[in-house]
Amino acid sequence: MSEENIKDSEVDIVIGALQADLSSFLNEWRPIISRFHLIIVQDPDLKDELNIPEGFDLDVYTKSDIDRIVGSSGSAFFSGYSCRYFGYLISRKKYIISIDDDCFPAKDNMGNSIDAVAQHITNLTTPATPFFFNTLYDPFREGADFVRGYPFSLRSGVTSAISCGLWLNLADYDAPTQALKSQLRNSRYVDAVITVPARALMPVSGINIAFDREAVGPTLFPALKLAQEGNFRWETMEDIWSGMCAKVVCDHLGLGVKSGLPYVWRKERGSAIDSLRKEWEGVKLMEEVVPFFQSVRLPQTATTAEDCVVEIAKTVKEQLGRVDPVFSRAAEAMVEWVKLWKIGSGSPLVFR
Amino acid sequence: MSEENIKDSEVDIVIGALQADLSSFLNEWRPIISRFHLIIVQDPDLKDELNIPEGFDLDVYTKSDIDRIVGSSGSAFFSGYSCRYFGYLISRKKYIISIDDDCFPAKDNMGNSIDAVAQHITNLTTPATPFFFNTLYDPFREGADFVRGYPFSLRSGVTSAISCGLWLNLADYDAPTQALKSQLRNSRYVDAVITVPARALMPVSGINIAFDREAVGPTLFPALKLAQEGNFRWETMEDIWSGMCAKVVCDHLGLGVKSGLPYVWRKERGSAIDSLRKEWEGVKLMEEVVPFFQSVRLPQTATTAEDCVVEIAKTVKEQLGRVDPVFSRAAEAMVEWVKLWKIGSGSPLVFR
Repeated sequence: MSEENIKDSEVDIVIGALQADLSSFLNEWRPIISRFHLIIVQDPDLKDELNIPEGFDLDVYTKSDIDRIVGSSGSAFFSGYSCRYFGYLISRKKYIISIDDDCFPAKDNMGNSIDAVAQHITNLTTPATPFFFNTLYDPFREGADFVRGYPFSLRSGVTSAISCGLWLNLADYDAPTQALKSQLRNSRYVDAVITVPARALMPVSGINIAFDREAVGPTLFPALKLAQEGNFRWETMEDIWSGMCAKVVCDHLGLGVKSGLPYVWRKERGSAIDSLRKEWEGVKLMEEVVPFFQSVRLPQTATTAEDCVVEIAKTVKEQLGRVDPVFSRAAEAMVEWVKLWKIGSGSPLVFR
Repeated sequence: MSEENIKDSEVDIVIGALQADLSSFLNEWRPIISRFHLIIVQDPDLKDELNIPEGFDLDVYTKSDIDRIVGSSGSAFFSGYSCRYFGYLISRKKYIISIDDDCFPAKDNMGNSIDAVAQHITNLTTPATPFFFNTLYDPFREGADFVRGYPFSLRSGVTSAISCGLWLNLADYDAPTQALKSQLRNSRYVDAVITVPARALMPVSGINIAFDREAVGPTLFPALKLAQEGNFRWETMEDIWSGMCAKVVCDHLGLGVKSGLPYVWRKERGSAIDSLRKEWEGVKLMEEVVPFFQSVRLPQTATTAEDCVVEIAKTVKEQLGRVDPVFSRAAEAMVEWVKLWKIGSGSPLVFR
């Protein structure tokens, strides 16, 4: 497997538009993304018309498209940062790459511009190694290999399903951390890609992510909505929650999750201190969420991502539902998502 | 916890001397290690007298010391790369740092000389985070923190017990890899320290390692001896085997294992092709070793590293003993090691 095998036509770049003026965003990304098809989904709460520069192959979806395709509940489902998930649903491509609209191409330690799309595709098209940790990181990178002691039977690895990229400048901290350390910026470029080991959980950030839509598309959804959720990343939990589901599903199905390169440059936006009041809800929920996902086990009969999500939703309802109603609503949204996903993949006409 | 709390007198630097002339090795390391106490253990198979430059605070142990202290079987136990373990046994310090005598101080990406000792001490004296993966790597490094979604209850971390450093130039590959890719050198300096997640196994290399001797000293021993073991790293398995034990014990006791910085510069030595015939034994054994350690579970009654090693030895004998006699011998050596360790810590007079 190598990235040469991937055609540009197998990739959709999905952008959730939380701001109307996408001109500087798209112009800065132009050299990297212009050869791919773009799906732009406008936040249904955003009233202004989008400003999109010429020269891209793209489809734009707005509130009326969402309502038409998934019904009138769609706008609530796909509001705010969750609008991008509509793009995941509507895409028919094997791979999806999604980057927040406040991120720009970053530079590596040598000052070279990073092609985040190429790196994500490399991550997804080279094997992952979740069953044994390679101390020299990704053994499939040029100049690297498996170290002494790595079992030969595990060296072919498994299919990579998710590639989680990182952030320079404003990192993906929560509001309390950002408020407490308002000067904290990430300037450390770590030149590595790691397979997150099987059974190790992680906070998957939706800021800069790519995945194999055919393999794990149904596991990435907007289900956990905080009561006071706003339009700053540190006010959301939807990506963290679905990322936990996605990791558990990948472990169950024998698929790999990678973290590390590529970096994007994340711009400043909003005040963490203003968000503190809202964020605590999400922070508190994680104390329940992590032990739950550490203990959840999927039955052998769950052989697809859809099956797995339905099974997890059932257990969420049973075990977490009594802790907080936000979890019952998440479980219902997960079941709803799988229904939408199945309709979408069964009847392409409905969705295009 | 921070490195300021560690006195130099709490650290022993243990060097296994596989070559008689240590002058260039010690002189290159002088600025970094001269303020610490050194334990130099001469490979009992090495007949020449050691050449050691002036100006170090050190104790040297030779074949006759080993035989006197652990009995006449000692020389076989501690031959070749295993000689360093005699230093682990004889030390009375809390922390041990051990680096192969063919390694030299490396430089980082900015061309600055790396203080491997300081980095190991930082790794050991800042907490580890084995129960949830932090995508921005070590959250205790300057300029880093826990990312959004990281549960606050896990942010205090656990005590770090083992710090595994890496290698620039000649990396720690096995003989087949080194022979097949004879030009392969590691030039990628990855500026990161990672806690290897709980329940994830890894190949611990003894080339550049540090550990909390009081917490996990009994888990690092020379037990798995290959029939054709020689004096090249790629011909040995003793560190990989004891590293698997150590990781399982750390997971059981709630201690952390870190991997990454510091790097050392590893010099060329020997021919991998000549070693190929020997190495295959070790390579084949890993196919049994990894599934074994992935399945081994320790009883709640095992509350110290000594207890854990004895329990693992019992299971090795039962389950792996029938696969290959090398494993039965390893199990016996592990029990023997714990006995030596207990004698040593109970009666310091015997050992000094």
